[in-house]
Amino acid sequence: MDYGKIALEKHEKWHGKIEIKTRAETNTSDDLSIAYTPGVAAPCLEIQKDVNKSFLYTRRWNTVAVVTDGTAVLGLGDIGPEAGMPVMEGKCVLFKAFGDVDAIPLCIRSKDVDTIVDTICLLSGSFGGINLEDIAAPRCFEIERKLKEKCDIVVFHDDQHGTAIVVAAALLNALKVVDKKPGDLRIAMNGAGAAGIAIAELLIRMGFGNVILCDRKGMICEGDEGLTSGKEAISHISNLQHEHGTLADAMKGADVFIGVSGPRLVTKDMVASMNDGIVFAMANPVPEIMPDEAKEAGAKVIGTGRSDFANQINNVLVFPGVFRGALDVRATEINEEMKMAAARAIAGIVTENELSADYVIPEAFDPRVKDAVASAVAKAARNSGAIREI
Amino acid sequence: MDYGKIALEKHEKWHGKIEIKTRAETNTSDDLSIAYTPGVAAPCLEIQKDVNKSFLYTRRWNTVAVVTDGTAVLGLGDIGPEAGMPVMEGKCVLFKAFGDVDAIPLCIRSKDVDTIVDTICLLSGSFGGINLEDIAAPRCFEIERKLKEKCDIVVFHDDQHGTAIVVAAALLNALKVVDKKPGDLRIAMNGAGAAGIAIAELLIRMGFGNVILCDRKGMICEGDEGLTSGKEAISHISNLQHEHGTLADAMKGADVFIGVSGPRLVTKDMVASMNDGIVFAMANPVPEIMPDEAKEAGAKVIGTGRSDFANQINNVLVFPGVFRGALDVRATEINEEMKMAAARAIAGIVTENELSADYVIPEAFDPRVKDAVASAVAKAARNSGAIREI
Repeated sequence: MDYGKIALEKHEKWHGKIEIKTRAETNTSDDLSIAYTPGVAAPCLEIQKDVNKSFLYTRRWNTVAVVTDGTAVLGLGDIGPEAGMPVMEGKCVLFKAFGDVDAIPLCIRSKDVDTIVDTICLLSGSFGGINLEDIAAPRCFEIERKLKEKCDIVVFHDDQHGTAIVVAAALLNALKVVDKKPGDLRIAMNGAGAAGIAIAELLIRMGFGNVILCDRKGMICEGDEGLTSGKEAISHISNLQHEHGTLADAMKGADVFIGVSGPRLVTKDMVASMNDGIVFAMANPVPEIMPDEAKEAGAKVIGTGRSDFANQINNVLVFPGVFRGALDVRATEINEEMKMAAARAIAGIVTENELSADYVIPEAFDPRVKDAVASAVAKAARNSGAIREI
Repeated sequence: MDYGKIALEKHEKWHGKIEIKTRAETNTSDDLSIAYTPGVAAPCLEIQKDVNKSFLYTRRWNTVAVVTDGTAVLGLGDIGPEAGMPVMEGKCVLFKAFGDVDAIPLCIRSKDVDTIVDTICLLSGSFGGINLEDIAAPRCFEIERKLKEKCDIVVFHDDQHGTAIVVAAALLNALKVVDKKPGDLRIAMNGAGAAGIAIAELLIRMGFGNVILCDRKGMICEGDEGLTSGKEAISHISNLQHEHGTLADAMKGADVFIGVSGPRLVTKDMVASMNDGIVFAMANPVPEIMPDEAKEAGAKVIGTGRSDFANQINNVLVFPGVFRGALDVRATEINEEMKMAAARAIAGIVTENELSADYVIPEAFDPRVKDAVASAVAKAARNSGAIREI
């Protein structure tokens, strides 16, 4: 199917993929006097007395801004803020369809960290959460960090944390298939952008083992010259034996390969050198190695980012439920406990009977996902004190 | 009816007066590949080639941001950005119900002119228009002026121009009732805030006659000491005989009184001193003079802002149609021609048979209003070259 051609026709026909729906009646003069003046003064005054009441009397409690600067849109790169909007609208569609979250697409005409942070902060009284999207690394890290400091609502960079959570979920189940346990695994990764670094961080935090992250130059090692801030930070907790070498070297004897890099960067020989390898080759649309080749080379569990192969590792499993849970408890942040809870919840949906090498992760349309993720995230938020009482 | 009490209950039940509705299908994996990755890359790339295509492939063409800083919310004053949001959401409800415009409520946590202007400009690629709302004078004038300079989309401060347009419309018809013509009228006004100054400007531009604008200190006259920038600007084109004195002096012999001030500031004697007076007493909820008193004092046509009296002068007649028309032609601004066209279109809806002292302006729910205003505004935009071709 030529998705591009159909998408262009459909987008022209849709003329926008989201619209506003009113929840208030507007049939009579009394209706207007209640939804608008003079009646509306009453909820305004309640919010003036206690600003948290805005989570009760307005849609803020369920509204998330999906924000981009258009610098890292899909695999297309820096195509500009307006050109990123079809993706933002698409994300908003998924938020509503899979999480019943009201998401609003916003593009910002700036590439300056502080300008982007300030713009979002100034608007944050309008929203219950911020989902950063398709912002290039390393700027995305700094934007997220500063926003978390300055904003009193949930901030989540899905390209980082959504991807990390769904990878962790798939890995938890893949390990059961090959009868291994998290702990002393050797995990080779390729791609040290926003997603790669976030995946590495979460897997390390969850105690999977020694993660060796590679970029174009090979293994990233503590003490390397000229590392970006994101790579420098991860270098202190990854590659524990301080190895140097190529991706092929990293994959030798590895239990897991995770690719968030580019097409066909992994060979059959590299997979054959692994130890009963789990291979998550998630480059889109062409993976680091095609699933049939990985299988021939001895991989035991194979996942990709594509819907036309088994084990699609797709963050649509993550962000709708994560925000649903966070919004339900008026969370003040999405912390590590909440991310780990989301990963475990997604993994937990696949029952022992369902689990197989070709089914380590639920499908995008699995109706169990949203509620399982949302309730796990809400519970973790409560337990970690990251909720707002009103 | 106790609108405040009912409104509080209803707002709690609604839990937000607007939500997002998706226009794209999300039932199958193919659906997601068209609305989201990989298909969505195609419209992104088209917009990258020509940024105006964002009016074709995203909802930008129909989306308006309703923006406040919370400093002049209804008659409540500076209650803060979040506390203004119930009004903004209410406005968005009216935009959708009466204009099929998708409006998004945004509050900005700043009172600084340049900060507000920059924030809106940075986001303007997300929208087809900006509706400023409940921002205190004189800051609102400067924000609007700077935004119009910097933004390439429609900018409209409804408190100013919506009110001015509906007053002009009502006045056009009221003059027919008293068998007078625009030209040499004496028009006394009370209230020199955002609405008052905008009304005066539009009436002068449309050639109604000599407008004498009063504030708390009395008539505003060219050369007065200590005028704000808005009052200073209007002083050069109003009060042509350079009169000084009170509102009562201004009303002596006046053909028209327009109040956008406070409750009960006009007496029966003042109305009696007019020349077959037209009295638009629009202070809310309590007018400058109650309609029955104005009538007893000899007023020939009486209008207020309230729905429980005849001739409700309500800008819900204006902004949905103005934006509908502007968005339909992808207008680049809302200029004076478009405002005057809107006023004449609203007046023109009332037929000769319908016209009476108690019916000079259509009712809020009149189904003829939106299309009449929208097509007049679109035509004026085309004729004045204020449209964007794609």
